[in-house]
Amino acid sequence: MGNWARQCARHHHNKQWNNTMKKWLLTAAIAAAFGAQADEGMWQPHQLPALAKTLKAKGLEIDPESISKLTEFPMNAVISLGGCTASFVSPKGLVVTNHHCAYGSIQYNSTAEKNLLADGFLAKSFDEELPAAPGSRVYVTESVTNVTAQINEGLESLKGDDFYKGVEAKEKALVAECEKEDGYRCNVYSFHGGLEYYLIKQMEIRDVRLVHNPAGSVGKYGGDIDNWMWPRHTGDYSFYRAYVGKDGKPADFSKDNVPYEPKSFLKVSAKGLKDGDFVMVTGYPGRTNRYRTASEVENQFTWNYPASRELREQIIDIIKTSAPEGSDARIKYESTLASLANYAKNFASMIEFYGKSTMLEDRKAREAELANWIKADAQRQAKYGQTLADLERLVAEGNKTQELDLILGYMSYSTPMSTAARLYRLAHEKQLPDMEREPGFQDRDMTRFTAGLERIDRRYDASVDKVVLFEMLKHYAALPADKRRADLDAFFGIGKKFDEKKLKKQLDKMYDKTEIGNKDVRMAWMDKSVADFKASKDPFIQLAVATYDISMAREKAQKELAGELMKVRPAYMEAIIAYNNELGKPVYADANSSLRVTYGNVKGYSPKDGLYAVPFTRLEGITQKDTGVDPFDAPKKQLELIEAKQYGDFYVKDIDSVPVNFLSTVDTTGGNSGSPTLNGRAELVGLLFDGVYESIIGDWNYDDNINRSIHVDSRYMLWVMKYLDKADNLLAEMEIVE
Amino acid sequence: MGNWARQCARHHHNKQWNNTMKKWLLTAAIAAAFGAQADEGMWQPHQLPALAKTLKAKGLEIDPESISKLTEFPMNAVISLGGCTASFVSPKGLVVTNHHCAYGSIQYNSTAEKNLLADGFLAKSFDEELPAAPGSRVYVTESVTNVTAQINEGLESLKGDDFYKGVEAKEKALVAECEKEDGYRCNVYSFHGGLEYYLIKQMEIRDVRLVHNPAGSVGKYGGDIDNWMWPRHTGDYSFYRAYVGKDGKPADFSKDNVPYEPKSFLKVSAKGLKDGDFVMVTGYPGRTNRYRTASEVENQFTWNYPASRELREQIIDIIKTSAPEGSDARIKYESTLASLANYAKNFASMIEFYGKSTMLEDRKAREAELANWIKADAQRQAKYGQTLADLERLVAEGNKTQELDLILGYMSYSTPMSTAARLYRLAHEKQLPDMEREPGFQDRDMTRFTAGLERIDRRYDASVDKVVLFEMLKHYAALPADKRRADLDAFFGIGKKFDEKKLKKQLDKMYDKTEIGNKDVRMAWMDKSVADFKASKDPFIQLAVATYDISMAREKAQKELAGELMKVRPAYMEAIIAYNNELGKPVYADANSSLRVTYGNVKGYSPKDGLYAVPFTRLEGITQKDTGVDPFDAPKKQLELIEAKQYGDFYVKDIDSVPVNFLSTVDTTGGNSGSPTLNGRAELVGLLFDGVYESIIGDWNYDDNINRSIHVDSRYMLWVMKYLDKADNLLAEMEIVE
Repeated sequence: MGNWARQCARHHHNKQWNNTMKKWLLTAAIAAAFGAQADEGMWQPHQLPALAKTLKAKGLEIDPESISKLTEFPMNAVISLGGCTASFVSPKGLVVTNHHCAYGSIQYNSTAEKNLLADGFLAKSFDEELPAAPGSRVYVTESVTNVTAQINEGLESLKGDDFYKGVEAKEKALVAECEKEDGYRCNVYSFHGGLEYYLIKQMEIRDVRLVHNPAGSVGKYGGDIDNWMWPRHTGDYSFYRAYVGKDGKPADFSKDNVPYEPKSFLKVSAKGLKDGDFVMVTGYPGRTNRYRTASEVENQFTWNYPASRELREQIIDIIKTSAPEGSDARIKYESTLASLANYAKNFASMIEFYGKSTMLEDRKAREAELANWIKADAQRQAKYGQTLADLERLVAEGNKTQELDLILGYMSYSTPMSTAARLYRLAHEKQLPDMEREPGFQDRDMTRFTAGLERIDRRYDASVDKVVLFEMLKHYAALPADKRRADLDAFFGIGKKFDEKKLKKQLDKMYDKTEIGNKDVRMAWMDKSVADFKASKDPFIQLAVATYDISMAREKAQKELAGELMKVRPAYMEAIIAYNNELGKPVYADANSSLRVTYGNVKGYSPKDGLYAVPFTRLEGITQKDTGVDPFDAPKKQLELIEAKQYGDFYVKDIDSVPVNFLSTVDTTGGNSGSPTLNGRAELVGLLFDGVYESIIGDWNYDDNINRSIHVDSRYMLWVMKYLDKADNLLAEMEIVE
Repeated sequence: MGNWARQCARHHHNKQWNNTMKKWLLTAAIAAAFGAQADEGMWQPHQLPALAKTLKAKGLEIDPESISKLTEFPMNAVISLGGCTASFVSPKGLVVTNHHCAYGSIQYNSTAEKNLLADGFLAKSFDEELPAAPGSRVYVTESVTNVTAQINEGLESLKGDDFYKGVEAKEKALVAECEKEDGYRCNVYSFHGGLEYYLIKQMEIRDVRLVHNPAGSVGKYGGDIDNWMWPRHTGDYSFYRAYVGKDGKPADFSKDNVPYEPKSFLKVSAKGLKDGDFVMVTGYPGRTNRYRTASEVENQFTWNYPASRELREQIIDIIKTSAPEGSDARIKYESTLASLANYAKNFASMIEFYGKSTMLEDRKAREAELANWIKADAQRQAKYGQTLADLERLVAEGNKTQELDLILGYMSYSTPMSTAARLYRLAHEKQLPDMEREPGFQDRDMTRFTAGLERIDRRYDASVDKVVLFEMLKHYAALPADKRRADLDAFFGIGKKFDEKKLKKQLDKMYDKTEIGNKDVRMAWMDKSVADFKASKDPFIQLAVATYDISMAREKAQKELAGELMKVRPAYMEAIIAYNNELGKPVYADANSSLRVTYGNVKGYSPKDGLYAVPFTRLEGITQKDTGVDPFDAPKKQLELIEAKQYGDFYVKDIDSVPVNFLSTVDTTGGNSGSPTLNGRAELVGLLFDGVYESIIGDWNYDDNINRSIHVDSRYMLWVMKYLDKADNLLAEMEIVE
């Protein structure tokens, strides 16, 4: 009733906010008009000086050289948690990362009486800080050394499996040498499929403590429903602290340990960003596939993802049926379910956006372009003329067993089956000198190995596991005979005829009899010999023994192929790099969990025709979404603060609120979670924690129009800390800048 | 892979389009900054001169006076189809309206061999035009006369039922007098709950023919899934032609009839609109409730909508179960299902957005404001001091029977039950002189009455109907005894105990025995006497006879209440109008299916925090949505035209495409469908066909931020007609302007 003086509805937006929403887009448009280029690229720090001009033009204020130096600010403030990224934000080793990266530690410290997941946690002083979950680590990268020449030296004439093993042996030697210094973890990373190798040395801090996390209804707001989604309103941050011995060196947990004093730390911005601003993210992205061939792309999207998604969804259904909501078994499978569903959604997005994209045609065009360039020059022709054909042949070779590989992969969701196999493998590997063992079975891996065996107690239920294995074996049995394995066929009585009932009975007996579910028994197998395994009556140990030889033969064949690929893929990448060099374009390597830098701008996008995702969400969006039911059950006090417009120090006039999450064009993927988002002065303006649904396919193909990363805004983090959680001690400890 | 020259992905947006998306919002922002006011209001044409200044300021270029004159351009080009709006677009009586408004006629002319719904239809010449569905009408409004004084004269002292009947008798007399002239249909419309009455005289053209409709996959693109949704890509337009006798007067269908030559017609704009442009919609909105009291609002949203939605959803479930997909019965119930689902969705939106709004508090504040204004002056106090309390009392009185009323309402989904009751009523009414009969049972209503009885054959299945009645009777039986009816209790044996099995048996017998499902039998009852009904053995006729007296008593009580409300609500509205007059604000009446004008601007909105609905969709959005499966199965040729960027004459540089649908702030509701959307020069720039999901609650409460109407863009209509359907004859017939 416009003719009456009307009260404000909750949907009310003031004019300022309307104007801002409109201007956001214009800003970005003007930037675009001045020829800003695509923000694709996960750059190795040493590549950044070559990009200096672009970085400066886009808004980097600090010296681009400084980002290339790992031992200087800001790079030495960026750390890895193994799987997640984090950063130091105080001189006393205070670490900020995502809530979902610290989740295990929050859960580990929660009890029915004191539920830190639900209620949040704040240590008001150092001595209130809690030990992080066992195995938690902070890795500080200290050096990155190009070891390509050392790796390749003397291996030139080797091929296949021999070459594979030769490289592996070199890597192990480099790692062992590097890890001689106590308190360090070293790894050799392969770039461009083996064109380059870098030895990365990281200080491994093993006394990590939980300092602060917001309530789950802030830190996980939106939960799985909002996972990969925009609009987003998640306060995905938490704080750890790194501790070392009094000597300043990594040490096991001890009351006597002291906070680690990092060489530098990030200042936290209370001013934040606006639309179009430059942003930079440093972190440890896990894996991308930007240089796979057209045929690899086609096979992945038309066969692998659809088939995997189907198996995943079937296993999800099985677990949900066998472990009904509210059952004890369901509690054990919650995290397995979450991970299965996470990737089922991931694959669904991959398949959907592949169908909508011209990715395959683009790849083909790109390959044709490269082929033309090669053909145009006799020298190139001599060097790379056969490369793509060789690559195609090897890939086709690998695909021959993909149906079996996939089913065996999902069969490993059976805990006793995969655990027994792993234990029997250990017994074999232990017969070898440490340096000759398969990676994952060396002495340096035993802490993780043990932790994995311990974890089973909280994640395994025999009745659920049995149905999963039964259904996967049915899939296996449906394969044509020449795609199956003689050992599995024999063990489970799968032949021309397949008797489901008989298999069911056999599995009933196996699960009745096996003691793999018993922790003590399981752990004891770590120390037993091959002969002990062979003598065992445990049906899953017997299965492991029965299938060992063929598994090893399969692995050998795979390494044979991998070894060949390790010669061909580098050549292919070399051609790509040479071609781009001619065009004056640097080439970044696919992600491989090593430290990378990506840059871009705050920017919205159009998820579909007729809609525009604006770059910032606001506090009011939390109230709009809130249903009072998990995962949309913000703390009552937070809703009251919002209702009362208590924006405090973090009010942003442009949006007439406090920003919660924002979008940017930076190029990221899994492993980047927790990465500090930096402004042009390398101040922390947010934490990267997700990408939008439309950009999941970005792991294969970065598209300017839809690739967007999602960040929690530093202003939201500070607002919650100050007004909701009263984390004044941490606010005082950090250096907060305007 | 940003470092390679990349091909365009389908998601690719060019810079121009990105810039435009951004500028759209800025334009709107600037307009807002200059104090543009809210666009709420469905104005009677005679009110427009009072709004001249606003209209001019907003962008109306023609004289505001002209819109107030029904017999001048452009108002005399706007016509009613009864339930939908349409407009003349050629001097030869060519009519444009929504595809969904012409749906019945398209369906009527479709056969298995020649499916006009699926394939579309184009008459290449006048003689190829097809008769519209029986009963199709074009109503041209010729005069609107204020008859308030005549209605009220001599009725001052009457109360309740007497007053109700007194008004009804006056209305009938006015209508009869007006309809004396052959070829006219007249109605008295009550405004502001009875504060004013207008006699509206419309020429009734009854030879209406189908001229052109696009394929269903254009005209209904998105179907029920996209219903009320944005983004939208529906080509919701179709063409009729009005025919009259050679004397220029309305006539029954005849080959000798000639196209009607309207006094004026709308020019069609090929230039269209851009964001922020002025738009105006003239049409026949059905019903709004903008002036209901806070307690009426509360009852409606917390009781009526939730209860109705539940019954609707139950009936939907029953029909879907009893008439499985693919069955003959299902075909009969498709349109019933669509209508049930349509309002179930409508009510769901109402309930959702009521929960999110401050509507109830706003109403209360508004009432308090009015009460204060009344209290502040002795004269006002004397006149209106009791009005709100009286209104509240009467509303509460009416609510006493609402549980029963609601269930009886949904019980009328039983065709034999409601049909027998209607036929028996007719037998009673026919005993009275025509002028004394209940509206709907007068001679002038008999064509529609008969058509309704005929339609049953295509919409009724006894087995489905029986389950619906059974379930509704169960709800009825669950009412407390004092809320039930003695007659229904007795007839169905519902008392302290309720025997479901017995009821089921009784219904089995009733449906076995009744002949209401037989068309000839049913039609024959139209001519029978009350005594014939009383003697009948047909169980549903017996039910009608058994429940007649109480039904009449209930109707009398309702009229008694209605008569009282017809005195109080006008007083309440008078107070509201007087108060607003003091503030210098005109007041529009709630919609009542009479001709109204609403104006506003092209404008996007924010459906939720973090998202902005941009004001135009584009051809590319069709390709994006297309799955090849109904309702997202655009014609192959259309997709090819889009792929090839064949934008032709309708290319809009700003969006680098042809606009499909657009959003505006105009204030519309059901009945407005098909309304011409006019620019400042009164050229047709589109057709209104829907509102967004967030604005369904707009029938009760217009909110600037989320109330948006959806229009099909004239440029899309012309593009499809020219390039897809080759409707060159119509394009030549219309006056298309740049």
